[in-house]
Amino acid sequence: SFSRGMQTVTLIPGDGIGPEISAAVVKIFDAAKAPIRWEERDVMAIKGPGGRWMIPPDAKESMDRSKIGLKGPLKTPIAAGHPSMNLLLRKTFDLYANVRPCVSIEGYKTPYTDVDLVTIRENTEGEYSGIEHVIVDGVVQSIKLITENASRRIAEYAFEYARNNKRSSVTAVHKANIMRMSDGLFLRKCREVAEDYKDIKFTEMYLDTVCLNMVQDPTQFDILVMPNLYGDILSDLCAGLIGGLGVTPSGNIGANGVAIFESVHGTAPDIAGMDLANPTALLLSAVMMLRHMGLHEHASKIQTACFDTIKEKKVLTKDLGGSSKCSEFTAEICRRVQDLD
Amino acid sequence: SFSRGMQTVTLIPGDGIGPEISAAVVKIFDAAKAPIRWEERDVMAIKGPGGRWMIPPDAKESMDRSKIGLKGPLKTPIAAGHPSMNLLLRKTFDLYANVRPCVSIEGYKTPYTDVDLVTIRENTEGEYSGIEHVIVDGVVQSIKLITENASRRIAEYAFEYARNNKRSSVTAVHKANIMRMSDGLFLRKCREVAEDYKDIKFTEMYLDTVCLNMVQDPTQFDILVMPNLYGDILSDLCAGLIGGLGVTPSGNIGANGVAIFESVHGTAPDIAGMDLANPTALLLSAVMMLRHMGLHEHASKIQTACFDTIKEKKVLTKDLGGSSKCSEFTAEICRRVQDLD
Ligand SMILES: CC(C)[C@H](C(=O)O)[C@@H](O)C(=O)O
Ligand SMILES: CC(C)[C@H](C(=O)O)[C@@H](O)C(=O)O
Repeated sequence: SFSRGMQTVTLIPGDGIGPEISAAVVKIFDAAKAPIRWEERDVMAIKGPGGRWMIPPDAKESMDRSKIGLKGPLKTPIAAGHPSMNLLLRKTFDLYANVRPCVSIEGYKTPYTDVDLVTIRENTEGEYSGIEHVIVDGVVQSIKLITENASRRIAEYAFEYARNNKRSSVTAVHKANIMRMSDGLFLRKCREVAEDYKDIKFTEMYLDTVCLNMVQDPTQFDILVMPNLYGDILSDLCAGLIGGLGVTPSGNIGANGVAIFESVHGTAPDIAGMDLANPTALLLSAVMMLRHMGLHEHASKIQTACFDTIKEKKVLTKDLGGSSKCSEFTAEICRRVQDLD
Repeated sequence: SFSRGMQTVTLIPGDGIGPEISAAVVKIFDAAKAPIRWEERDVMAIKGPGGRWMIPPDAKESMDRSKIGLKGPLKTPIAAGHPSMNLLLRKTFDLYANVRPCVSIEGYKTPYTDVDLVTIRENTEGEYSGIEHVIVDGVVQSIKLITENASRRIAEYAFEYARNNKRSSVTAVHKANIMRMSDGLFLRKCREVAEDYKDIKFTEMYLDTVCLNMVQDPTQFDILVMPNLYGDILSDLCAGLIGGLGVTPSGNIGANGVAIFESVHGTAPDIAGMDLANPTALLLSAVMMLRHMGLHEHASKIQTACFDTIKEKKVLTKDLGGSSKCSEFTAEICRRVQDLD
């Protein structure tokens, strides 16, 4: 068949600038002859039987089959009781690891150079348990839930990632001096798993100390692994160091190869449909996806073309300091991809 | 009496470099003729009646009388079950607001300039409740406790601080998209209090967004108010922006004028007793203290002398990039204080 060797990816273009930047990625993948067949789906949750919010069956079915998704930004649902789509997707597919490589981009000026680290965030529990109560009037509690299994699983993921990506150290980020039992459990599992990876250096650091050190010298960090909320914070902080969410890729990894890669910036409704959006974050997420699928050559080619375009500074979108349209930036990357052949 | 017009301050020199930097502050205060009588006390907790950990009665009594403390770094207690001294002091004196002004220091190079913000941290509850349970084997929960009273109190403190210090905006930092009830309650109280301060601009921002924006452009922030853990993180992050804990002051404020000012760096046992420590953080905390006591002239004089010394770069301790001893740095500040008369 004509799709021999092709792998299917569920494409979730999303809202606002989502369709434009998704189209840009598809174009660049075509130019790179990436063996991907896109299956476009809408994931915005609907009310299922029994009133439970769920992602539409044809999107769920596509993901179950393809196992791999690429997702643009989704607008915040406004219907009462509608769940955050990010949280619902993580839950539906048990995407337990959020992985965000943060690497300084040559030619894109920020206060920092040589940042090269990866935040690995536990994506399913912790402060995101959703369990909250009113104790008495004016007194509320939220429950942070930490389990041995999820902690071990994310620690193992971090060390495996370090080994597979030739990284040398893993730092567990915690506040076990304050949350002795919960962060204590998380930390204990990290220590245990570290025992099985003697080739990787293991360190532990308080979250506040990480934040302080991070803004003073981010080059001291390599892989960071942490509970859910700390990952939410640190991944955004680190994105800030290299230029923001417009250039930072993200992957949500589940068991058995299931994964959704996504840009984590917003839908930018003010410029939607105007051919002004910057597709870099979604493109670099798609590059992560290619690596996840074992398509390393295509990944490298596209990444090089993207970074070279930014480095040369001739064809850049407005947010990157240029005055080109999304389509021009995309065409420039396509041209470079083809030149690399 | 010879102490006419003098106010008493409880001095807690602390451990490691604590005594040296405390002595430096006392010298500089003498040079500035600050009307302060120091009452030196040791606060390291002891086991009281019934086995409860408490700070020694003569320290408690001194603080109850003076209402004002200045505290150097304390070593982490090693006795089993010994509480964190920071937490115990906050609790003993109900120091509900942790205030950390972060201002770029001229002449001290960091990746940022013109930082001028204040973090105001709720200091008594939230993630620091200390309530944790094992639910079943391998499943642990920590409880984040948010109350209406503590939230209103810290919001009021932040807006009052803004008004008294001629600041123009207060940003409430939260994750009410995730912790809808607890952070939701905190945020609601901030909004309510904001209604009474129409002269101060009020904004709200997610913690992750604050972190990202902070490392990209800290000058956009003014006063930030937030629950306990977020304050722990952001205050350290912001300290990093201006040069670290060695130059960042901190004040813990309670009701009825009670307050403890402290340097938040460690005890630096490796250089303790060697006349190498940098007293700046404790000195600037003492300057905050003078302002709190209404001694604005003395405060300004000492602050100017300290900043001028750093700006001139001739007499600096090692961590500030110089090669002078603590005593030389201190003498230089004293000289300048006297010149300002
Ligand atoms: C949108 C929100 C639910 C989400 C989070 O808090 O996890 C976002 O900040 C993220 O990092 O993906
Ligand atoms: C020492 C520790 C208990 C403390 C905290 O977590 O609050 C410290 O980080 C601080 O900010 O004062």
